[in-house]
Amino acid sequence: MRLRKKPRAAGEIAAHPEYITITPAAFKGQWQEKFAKKQPLHVEIGSGKGRFIIEMAKAHPECNFIGLEIQSSVIIMILEKQLVTQLPNLYLVQANGNALTDYFAPNEVAQLYLNFSDPWPKNRHAKRRLTYPTFLKMYRQVLQPAGNLQFKTDNRGLFEYSLLSFNQFGTKFIELSLDLHQNKQRENIETEYEQRFSRLGHPIYWIKLQFK
Amino acid sequence: MRLRKKPRAAGEIAAHPEYITITPAAFKGQWQEKFAKKQPLHVEIGSGKGRFIIEMAKAHPECNFIGLEIQSSVIIMILEKQLVTQLPNLYLVQANGNALTDYFAPNEVAQLYLNFSDPWPKNRHAKRRLTYPTFLKMYRQVLQPAGNLQFKTDNRGLFEYSLLSFNQFGTKFIELSLDLHQNKQRENIETEYEQRFSRLGHPIYWIKLQFK
Repeated sequence: MRLRKKPRAAGEIAAHPEYITITPAAFKGQWQEKFAKKQPLHVEIGSGKGRFIIEMAKAHPECNFIGLEIQSSVIIMILEKQLVTQLPNLYLVQANGNALTDYFAPNEVAQLYLNFSDPWPKNRHAKRRLTYPTFLKMYRQVLQPAGNLQFKTDNRGLFEYSLLSFNQFGTKFIELSLDLHQNKQRENIETEYEQRFSRLGHPIYWIKLQFK
Repeated sequence: MRLRKKPRAAGEIAAHPEYITITPAAFKGQWQEKFAKKQPLHVEIGSGKGRFIIEMAKAHPECNFIGLEIQSSVIIMILEKQLVTQLPNLYLVQANGNALTDYFAPNEVAQLYLNFSDPWPKNRHAKRRLTYPTFLKMYRQVLQPAGNLQFKTDNRGLFEYSLLSFNQFGTKFIELSLDLHQNKQRENIETEYEQRFSRLGHPIYWIKLQFK
């Protein structure tokens, strides 16, 4: 995603600790204190411009949501929307997803979402894919036993790789779709990317799984 | 598949015990005796008109192939081709796939193929799908420990169901493709059905797995 530099992002983020942090490790095991109510914690890794996490927070007031995004110039767009909507069940974290176990205590998370993650198509970059075993190990640690992970992408190569990785890691597949937009009965909140690219006729692949 | 009745099929099948049997249980554990050489046994369940199993037998003289098909009016077409080609590594079985463990001894089979199996789309018919757990249990029993199953279909619902079924049964996914005809580097012998329907632009789904 090409974006103009936003030099004021750091200042704006620092000015709103009630909605966003850049030091998530400081709140490990205590995330419920950030929200109006204590209720199941859902975390999206790589929230981009935030359409998914904002609409999920609106649709599910019975859950708390954290949107994690590494790029300050992108997460600032979510913050600016949150300054208007002030959803009591949404909090933002500007940090790298590869240190997830530093941010969340074991069993602290009820649900994880990966949406249209970077496919890293070259084999030598496989370790960077968010469905590589080192990441799955972190997800297993922070998720509650009955918790689950949901992953969607339009990238066929990434989904093929991920199905193998999930299966070989020993996760249990709960539901999946190889053309999510044809399954009209299922709730599906679209990301910005998904809204643009699914119109081109690419199927959206989706899976929901548990770490047993 | 609509076919004219072929009243002479039974007679023609009975006349060629060197190429076909309707009593496979009689050869359980002794299939190698049917072939010119003792070599790994590959079995296709539901061979239809036989393009796949015939071309596989031609392409892989280092393996023995059995084509299993329940409909006499269909398997007779494979027999008629075999009467011409006389492949030394191909044998036919006219029988129902749901009694597989009566036909093959434990560990007798190196590889199983399911190609474009009946999708049985209604939930109340799920038990008839060839990827339902009762079938997987049979496949596990007849396959060698290092043996594998390959399954391909253009039916999205069946493939989605089967991925869940395979995963929940505890199989290990080795390789898969969500658009097999885009993976040009991989050997893919097409069935008659596949040749007709893949031209309509439907992706062909494929998986190779082990029972660990």
